[in-house]
Amino acid sequence: MKLIPDNFKSEINKRIQSVRQKMSESDIEALFVGYNTNVYYLTGGFFRGYVYLPIEGEPLWLVIKPDIFSKEDNVISIRKPEQLPEILKGKNMKFPSSVGLEFDSLSYSDIKRLEKIFPDTKIVNGSYPLIRSRMIKTDWEVSQMKKDGILQARVYGEVKNCYHEGMTDLQLQIEIERQLRLAGSLGFTRTAGNLMDINMGSLVAGDNADNPSPYDFTMGGSGMDSSLPVGANGHILKPGETVMVDMNGAFNAYQTDMTRVWRKGEIPEIAFRAHDCSIEIMRFLEDFVVPGVSVASLYEKALEIVELRGLDAYFMGHASQVNFIGHGVGLELNEPPVIMKKSKDLIKKNMTLAIEPKFVIPGVGAVGIENTYVVNETGLENLTSFPEEIQLL
Amino acid sequence: MKLIPDNFKSEINKRIQSVRQKMSESDIEALFVGYNTNVYYLTGGFFRGYVYLPIEGEPLWLVIKPDIFSKEDNVISIRKPEQLPEILKGKNMKFPSSVGLEFDSLSYSDIKRLEKIFPDTKIVNGSYPLIRSRMIKTDWEVSQMKKDGILQARVYGEVKNCYHEGMTDLQLQIEIERQLRLAGSLGFTRTAGNLMDINMGSLVAGDNADNPSPYDFTMGGSGMDSSLPVGANGHILKPGETVMVDMNGAFNAYQTDMTRVWRKGEIPEIAFRAHDCSIEIMRFLEDFVVPGVSVASLYEKALEIVELRGLDAYFMGHASQVNFIGHGVGLELNEPPVIMKKSKDLIKKNMTLAIEPKFVIPGVGAVGIENTYVVNETGLENLTSFPEEIQLL
Repeated sequence: MKLIPDNFKSEINKRIQSVRQKMSESDIEALFVGYNTNVYYLTGGFFRGYVYLPIEGEPLWLVIKPDIFSKEDNVISIRKPEQLPEILKGKNMKFPSSVGLEFDSLSYSDIKRLEKIFPDTKIVNGSYPLIRSRMIKTDWEVSQMKKDGILQARVYGEVKNCYHEGMTDLQLQIEIERQLRLAGSLGFTRTAGNLMDINMGSLVAGDNADNPSPYDFTMGGSGMDSSLPVGANGHILKPGETVMVDMNGAFNAYQTDMTRVWRKGEIPEIAFRAHDCSIEIMRFLEDFVVPGVSVASLYEKALEIVELRGLDAYFMGHASQVNFIGHGVGLELNEPPVIMKKSKDLIKKNMTLAIEPKFVIPGVGAVGIENTYVVNETGLENLTSFPEEIQLL
Repeated sequence: MKLIPDNFKSEINKRIQSVRQKMSESDIEALFVGYNTNVYYLTGGFFRGYVYLPIEGEPLWLVIKPDIFSKEDNVISIRKPEQLPEILKGKNMKFPSSVGLEFDSLSYSDIKRLEKIFPDTKIVNGSYPLIRSRMIKTDWEVSQMKKDGILQARVYGEVKNCYHEGMTDLQLQIEIERQLRLAGSLGFTRTAGNLMDINMGSLVAGDNADNPSPYDFTMGGSGMDSSLPVGANGHILKPGETVMVDMNGAFNAYQTDMTRVWRKGEIPEIAFRAHDCSIEIMRFLEDFVVPGVSVASLYEKALEIVELRGLDAYFMGHASQVNFIGHGVGLELNEPPVIMKKSKDLIKKNMTLAIEPKFVIPGVGAVGIENTYVVNETGLENLTSFPEEIQLL
């Protein structure tokens, strides 16, 4: 079995070329990559081991486990990363004068171990070229996310059928989870860093939306246990509440992020107004966002619309508000850029952005939508096409 | 709202006392703790922020988010960890001469940032006292895991009802996931480190059990996508196969780990023999394992029984074998000790161990069981009581 199938090599080469571009900007002569998500990015498959990527010449795939790949195309079996120098020597490859290690993703202990392999080499942060390259998707990566969006929308079409009278928020979430899994969701939400714990997503209904979370999510919810304080809290859904569904769109290595709102019975006019404001922001941004505009301006423009509508007290939370309205998404749920006022990034073609201008209305719940978009030359293309109005449960 | 409820303070004090014992062994004057699982361990709840734990005197709970806890009992709002020195000064607390940071759990970038807070302080690995203390559960922690075991067993009792003729392994897994969630599973498997990705657990049937995984699990399975290569592969369950269910037991912050085997129709005698050998190992270890015996001896004794029964070719995998038969379990699925030959640990009272002597029989599938035990003075107490024989689907 080939680690990288022949028909996938050109895709991997595109990614390598993109990473090398970023390496040259940071003066990194080689990357030594061991973080799962980045190994996947440079391979198209997971293995335990390392990818050694020099800025020129052949990359090496150093596989500890599993031992099932044919040893060709620079796929080499290793027991431990300390074998790298002898392997480079055996291949007459130059030892790098600077090497990038994944400071942002690997533990301190992991990095200290890897540093010893490069005693006379300048060690720099290798996370940057990887995450910045991952931020701009290849067309193939976008095609995977398009598949995610279609499947996620199909399952959102089942939400109403999942509901029956007398259900709790959690029970509804469980039935949606089942539909997601039956449609092919891998049941796993891959995130980066230490500031997010999540299962298959978040469903918040009524005033539970106003319970702030310790995590880096836009919405809160107290959750079912103090060890996972996010999302559904187990209350029976009741008339006058909104139900915000923000659940897993990971049907392959990539994921889309989409939010829609349902309601139980009548809800006050302010909730509809805030929801319409979210849709208004989306329509505006879909035209406004082209390569070259600043990421910060997306936040600023959204806030302008919110202030114009007099809804700032409810924007991005009520009891506790967050200062961003979206984020990059791809292999991980939380990728750069963060769409916030202090962002220094510029929008680029083939960025994939989850944009989620949301509101929390006290006594009612959360409203607003989230779509995942890919940036085209002329604007945003929606990957998560599904009716946007508040639907009746 | 109190961060630590009054009736939970004595529990937290026990944990702090245990961590301080380990700190004194490692000459650590204070810990500065920011990793989710360890913050939870020292608090009984999650928040974004840090616990500052000096070896004597009052610990401080420094909360960035959420801002919902009453500011008493040394709960202090902060914006960033760099505020620690001024807080210590304000409280007339001594600045530590050595501080432990979580080298094994936080990223290199995170640790480099925290190091700067302690410019004249000796920085050492603070992961050790935390994980070694977590390894020995308090009675309250054990009581939580007992609840997990009862609920997990109840759901395993539904496995047969989840099955219908013509199902794939994945479809069966999805129905078990739903039952787990309805019974209160949080739907999230908390793991440590970079060597495990998993959703709600693993179900492997037939020859898929012989597909090795890149991860640190005992069993493999190729999974549904190259981005999550573990467990069910989507094939229709067929006569002559075994179905090994090793799924999520996390109904609160803690978790139990249990495996049972079902079969479709008739399977060869060798599969029953191997399964009986697994049960034989369990019965032996349940008496053998008391405080003071070496962890390595559990592995050695298991291997002796396996060799006596002539089953070593199938033990802990077939195409690819792993060199451990179990692990600690608690807040995370993979805690120390690892039950392997080269372990240097001794068994201690209130360790909680998942023991899983398993076999892969080519053409049939995986057999063997896994139980989670707590170590008592006189032997192992099983927390996952459920019929152990191979059951008919």
